[in-house]
Amino acid sequence: MSDHDEAGRERPASEAVRRSLARILAREETIHAWAEVDTEGAQAQAREIDSAPSRLPLAGLTLGVKDIIDVGGLRCEFGSPIYRGRLAFSDAALVATLKSLGIVVVGKAVTTEFAFLNPPHTRNPHNLAYSAGGSSSGSAAAVADGHVDAALGTQTAGSILRPASFCGVVGYKPTFGRFSRAGVLSTSPSLDTVGWLSKDMDTTIRVHDALGGEPLGNAQARFGFFHGVHAMTAEPAMRLGIERLAESLKATEVPSPPMLLDNLHATVMRYELRQELATEFLQHRDQLSPLLKLYLEDSPIQRADYLGALEHRDRFDIERMFAGADVLLTPAAPGEAVEYGTTGDPCFNRLATLLGLPAISLPFGRGPKGLPLGVQLIARRNQDDVLLATARRLDLHLRTLTIDPTR
Amino acid sequence: MSDHDEAGRERPASEAVRRSLARILAREETIHAWAEVDTEGAQAQAREIDSAPSRLPLAGLTLGVKDIIDVGGLRCEFGSPIYRGRLAFSDAALVATLKSLGIVVVGKAVTTEFAFLNPPHTRNPHNLAYSAGGSSSGSAAAVADGHVDAALGTQTAGSILRPASFCGVVGYKPTFGRFSRAGVLSTSPSLDTVGWLSKDMDTTIRVHDALGGEPLGNAQARFGFFHGVHAMTAEPAMRLGIERLAESLKATEVPSPPMLLDNLHATVMRYELRQELATEFLQHRDQLSPLLKLYLEDSPIQRADYLGALEHRDRFDIERMFAGADVLLTPAAPGEAVEYGTTGDPCFNRLATLLGLPAISLPFGRGPKGLPLGVQLIARRNQDDVLLATARRLDLHLRTLTIDPTR
Repeated sequence: MSDHDEAGRERPASEAVRRSLARILAREETIHAWAEVDTEGAQAQAREIDSAPSRLPLAGLTLGVKDIIDVGGLRCEFGSPIYRGRLAFSDAALVATLKSLGIVVVGKAVTTEFAFLNPPHTRNPHNLAYSAGGSSSGSAAAVADGHVDAALGTQTAGSILRPASFCGVVGYKPTFGRFSRAGVLSTSPSLDTVGWLSKDMDTTIRVHDALGGEPLGNAQARFGFFHGVHAMTAEPAMRLGIERLAESLKATEVPSPPMLLDNLHATVMRYELRQELATEFLQHRDQLSPLLKLYLEDSPIQRADYLGALEHRDRFDIERMFAGADVLLTPAAPGEAVEYGTTGDPCFNRLATLLGLPAISLPFGRGPKGLPLGVQLIARRNQDDVLLATARRLDLHLRTLTIDPTR
Repeated sequence: MSDHDEAGRERPASEAVRRSLARILAREETIHAWAEVDTEGAQAQAREIDSAPSRLPLAGLTLGVKDIIDVGGLRCEFGSPIYRGRLAFSDAALVATLKSLGIVVVGKAVTTEFAFLNPPHTRNPHNLAYSAGGSSSGSAAAVADGHVDAALGTQTAGSILRPASFCGVVGYKPTFGRFSRAGVLSTSPSLDTVGWLSKDMDTTIRVHDALGGEPLGNAQARFGFFHGVHAMTAEPAMRLGIERLAESLKATEVPSPPMLLDNLHATVMRYELRQELATEFLQHRDQLSPLLKLYLEDSPIQRADYLGALEHRDRFDIERMFAGADVLLTPAAPGEAVEYGTTGDPCFNRLATLLGLPAISLPFGRGPKGLPLGVQLIARRNQDDVLLATARRLDLHLRTLTIDPTR
């Protein structure tokens, strides 16, 4: 089968789907990235896109959708036995929008249980003994292993950037609220953010542009970096790599954000997760993982403390943190992927999530185990255009640079 | 059948359900308050509650649930033919919590299409030629006509307080974010608020207390009122009634909130509704009502304008508006219920919804057509306890007062 039909017309979507399905067939038994693959639906959608009167902006791209996001007609089980057999009636708003732009949904990507911490059976494609991270585990692994060009994920703590870093792909968490969550499982209304993981910066930006994102522009961003407690306890390869990168970018040092922000994030997330998962906790407690059950059964956060945390967050002086820089440079994760059987620590990702700032993880090197390392960029709220333009430049910069963080 | 079983044990839930179902049977053909009545489910739930080892706090109360809120096993069709046959897999978080407290869900109450403005076929129980208001149309009518003790509703502009005012029941919109929206249709993430309509203040407060609301206390609240443009264009009976009420409560005059707030609300709602209803707009446009279709097809709000509106909202000086008062007193609607075939104007409700303030509508008299009039109370954010305590006192005050706004 070629990229063209008998009449010589291009059929980029069908060809992309053919490649995607072949790769999944060859690799899924090893990687376990998928909750469901929709072979027939994907092929039908591709035929429709290829026969559209004009070429759609995302034609030729394939998409995985994290299994806490509805795709009409497919099961959506939130990674939990409680929801086994749950069929989504219609597409989530963002899925419908992406489909209308010509991207083909190939299937539902594995998520951790309710996008929380309990590890799923997804493997890291770079080394099967390691974790793909979470909670967007299948999304990261599927993109890293070449099953799809991009995958939707969500982040409440570090659920897009951490797996992206572990799997060596680009993971983009937009500004809080940038894209609709309609049709997406709610776990924490003040934090949950939908974004996507992609094989490269071009794809990340192509999706952003098609969705009506602000044009990127060309202004040079000033980089800032800081020595926080987390950075000092990161794996040496990650720490050294980021320091060298900061140096090569002439990043200026900015004040370390207070550790208190981590506590605020924990307070908000614990309070809200318990509210949002009330049905599961009240009616199906015995079908929760021990880890989630323990978390929900812990002494509840008082409402006054929750409101205090939100207020503190809203008053936090973001300008002081940026200190004149446009984009902050930090590790995207403490180091290389953790071992299979856990999803790793989101300690570097809570900052941007709590404050609603756009953030992206870019692969920039490998650690001593030969696994990818990711650098995180963080920009001001609603400056997704600055973030992505800077990430694109950094991506080019990285190609001219040899950073070997293991030495 | 009595309130007690053969062994002399109370069975308040079963008795309440029996009365509720009998009333619905007698009246539904006239009122059209229900999308679905769950006779068997309600009876089963009541038996379970009545046989619980200890009496649950809401035992003996019956509940209707607006048909944009999921109840597991029942259809939830959002008032739209697009979702005909959609079955909810599980309870919305708030529904599960209320059930666990002993309230029985009797059925799904009629909503306008996607909780927007297109009028449903629900009638005003006080006079069938008039509207029950919207979008929580069935919730208001069912409570007003004695089908259930309370009903869940949602408000994005005036969808709880306006129908409550039209139907002469208590309508309570909590502080934004106070109760979980998990399992509730999203139409505007910055505005959508879940609340309830009840037959009286006692029921309103009983539900609030059971849900872990802050204890009400007894402090005397200072009332404020203002002469805004809306108030001046309200029906004379409403305007005079509120003025007399303000006088009898020694309310102090506070500055009128700027009309600009109405525009900000419109900007936020139009931008977000279009995001949230992307699937329906892209895939099922011909099944939208002409009214909603027109609204969504109108030239879109630019993102910069939307962000500007949110920023303006967040900077608005709420303390200046309250000017030392604790609770503001305004009409809950422009006047008596409008005629059947429309849902009325939410102009008095946008203020509290936009600013996330808790608000309540209390019936306080009747207009020249003999239909109920509602007074709205608005308190500071997260002062739901002050709001409800004040409403309870006002409710008692109203019993000692003869306000005849028609003279």
